[in-house]
Amino acid sequence: MLSVTKLLEDIAAGHDSAEAAVARCRAEIAEHDGTLKAFAALAPGNAQVPVAGPLAGIAVGVKDIFDTYDMPTEYGSPIYAGFRPRADAPVVAMARARGAHVIGKTKTTEFAFLNPTDTVNPHDPAHTPGGSSSGSAAAVAAGMIPAAIGTQTGGSVVRPASFCGVAGYKPSFRLMPTGGMKTFAWTLDTTGLFAASARDVALFAARLTGRDLAVDEADAPRRIGLYRAAIDGEASDDMLGAVEKAANAAAKAGATVIEIAEPEELSRARDIHAIIQNYEAAISMGHELAFHADSLSPILRDTLEEGRGILPAEYDDARRIARRARKAATELFNDIDVLLAPSAPGAAPRDLGTTGSALFNKLWTLTGNPCVNVPGLADAAGMPLGVQVIGRFGRDKQTLSAAGWLENLLGN
Amino acid sequence: MLSVTKLLEDIAAGHDSAEAAVARCRAEIAEHDGTLKAFAALAPGNAQVPVAGPLAGIAVGVKDIFDTYDMPTEYGSPIYAGFRPRADAPVVAMARARGAHVIGKTKTTEFAFLNPTDTVNPHDPAHTPGGSSSGSAAAVAAGMIPAAIGTQTGGSVVRPASFCGVAGYKPSFRLMPTGGMKTFAWTLDTTGLFAASARDVALFAARLTGRDLAVDEADAPRRIGLYRAAIDGEASDDMLGAVEKAANAAAKAGATVIEIAEPEELSRARDIHAIIQNYEAAISMGHELAFHADSLSPILRDTLEEGRGILPAEYDDARRIARRARKAATELFNDIDVLLAPSAPGAAPRDLGTTGSALFNKLWTLTGNPCVNVPGLADAAGMPLGVQVIGRFGRDKQTLSAAGWLENLLGN
Repeated sequence: MLSVTKLLEDIAAGHDSAEAAVARCRAEIAEHDGTLKAFAALAPGNAQVPVAGPLAGIAVGVKDIFDTYDMPTEYGSPIYAGFRPRADAPVVAMARARGAHVIGKTKTTEFAFLNPTDTVNPHDPAHTPGGSSSGSAAAVAAGMIPAAIGTQTGGSVVRPASFCGVAGYKPSFRLMPTGGMKTFAWTLDTTGLFAASARDVALFAARLTGRDLAVDEADAPRRIGLYRAAIDGEASDDMLGAVEKAANAAAKAGATVIEIAEPEELSRARDIHAIIQNYEAAISMGHELAFHADSLSPILRDTLEEGRGILPAEYDDARRIARRARKAATELFNDIDVLLAPSAPGAAPRDLGTTGSALFNKLWTLTGNPCVNVPGLADAAGMPLGVQVIGRFGRDKQTLSAAGWLENLLGN
Repeated sequence: MLSVTKLLEDIAAGHDSAEAAVARCRAEIAEHDGTLKAFAALAPGNAQVPVAGPLAGIAVGVKDIFDTYDMPTEYGSPIYAGFRPRADAPVVAMARARGAHVIGKTKTTEFAFLNPTDTVNPHDPAHTPGGSSSGSAAAVAAGMIPAAIGTQTGGSVVRPASFCGVAGYKPSFRLMPTGGMKTFAWTLDTTGLFAASARDVALFAARLTGRDLAVDEADAPRRIGLYRAAIDGEASDDMLGAVEKAANAAAKAGATVIEIAEPEELSRARDIHAIIQNYEAAISMGHELAFHADSLSPILRDTLEEGRGILPAEYDDARRIARRARKAATELFNDIDVLLAPSAPGAAPRDLGTTGSALFNKLWTLTGNPCVNVPGLADAAGMPLGVQVIGRFGRDKQTLSAAGWLENLLGN
């Protein structure tokens, strides 16, 4: 994989150039994307590569759920075939303003919901790369680009990162802008980032946002909560083993590892994620439901129809449960620095007809806590298994630093 | 003015029809909009008028900051001249799904900020209608349409409603969707509604959202807080007199009126509204700043440049102040049902080069509390003076009912 950190260091030292780094990405894409199918569109070959700015030389893939002024934006749906927005989404404009080269649009499932893309997992093309940010995760995992932008409404950043063996960072809710993204559920939609390692994704986030988010190598977590959730029975033995391995490595390195039983407020909140998501999605997708219902996949159409049947009172109750869960989630961190949990139920399913399950992610999307998928472990067949570091709301730097510390222990 | 309540009653009783009601609006627009300039675009003359649904017969004007699939969407800026979005914004799709006829796009100031439109105040064309939802407020005030949709990021619903003598309703934050709206500041942008009276705007909101929001005539507020803010010195004697008049009418009708001194957390929050707004606006408008800076008005360009200079740490501090203010705002309602305050510093300025001041609105946009402008009072020259009913977060029905009760007392 391509390391954001190494690329920026080499360019700064004069051993590499922004143009050469981007040209190599273009060559990798030309060579491999025919097989991997991670890209929905590429920037024009004659597009100028910025040579100044804190991200100069970083070729960024942008999930095709964000508007771009210079490339088609199709939201993974035939309804938007050939659509050319007038403007870049704010996060895309931000990347360009910092000197990144937006090299292409990465494939998204239909409107970032469940209907899969044709992207394959770079570790084994018979396995799903996960979704909905399928192309972003796969393109980084295949070494075609060093960094990508995605979104998470259920588990669409952390899950594909886990399946593809890359770092995925879902920031605290609203830390990064969602404007110019096709809205699905406005209280859940979260912009996130991908890179080769936690250290790389933190540096990318820091340079992109102008925030102090780079991994602090001196900040080792002292107390780590091993999160024991009501849903742990859904995780594979491999995945539970990966989490134990990470916890043991942390304990050996001097951290106190404490078992944390999931509070009832949080297991309840996981159960009502779908009510909030589907109620809001039915409103957000009102135009497509009214004018293009026949062009929606059955799974999406059924979900939107179900969402349309949810009463405002049910939705309001669900939002109250979500508010209580946010408080409970904050209180969890009174005695610990970060939590450790599975990033997904297991390795990427050997099935291109699914993008896998968001079961281990949707609670933290609802509460808005920062999450980082730490890559580096694998099952017997060599398929990646990610563990998730979850931080207190607003403590993104601490969360990224803990993830960077953990990946060092795991030998990445 | 056209009453949503009366139109829907007459149509239900068979004394009027949806087609006839909409045709009359078209005729009014044809006759008056050449002078008033409230509309930026009109629906095609052959557009079908829905005859079924809870809003059938209601011609709705939509602020030209929301996308529409069948009309140009220009956001009040030459940068978007002729822009035709692919889809309706969710709130527009919602209006159509309920049977409303979207009759036209109403004028917005440039990107819903301060640079005025050419819309005039229907009460006196030398006065501003207010902004940024200038066309929405003026079109309802002139009796061209019964209902309109707008947005408020500072004071863009309550202020023009006050200046034009109509009801304006800014719901609790995120009660209505903002998707498909050109984002300015994502933690502030709030979709709002206009109609002739508080009772009308409540019925419009109820039918539009499917929520129980219609005025409950039996729900008279028992305790009303007369909000004494740090900024009251900026209000005109006329405006302060209007608020006293409303408070006296309420007391005479049996409500207990209690003076509430503004808590320090709230006056501080008003002061940092601009930090949050301008920081987010500089990100949201990143594309326009990068590619079209010369086509922005000087006031907007300067504000965005200033926003670009705000450090993340300053922004984060401001958001912490906003969070504390939301708590303090909720606690205010432990002992009272609603608050009463000026909707604006005074009547609409006699100046088409300004849209007036959002000073009395921006705090409540930041805290997300529901606000309703109650029309019906006027200064010596006959220019409208609005008073603002402010409710507890999430208690929109109670807030609308209190506004309806108050407007009855004021003899509307």
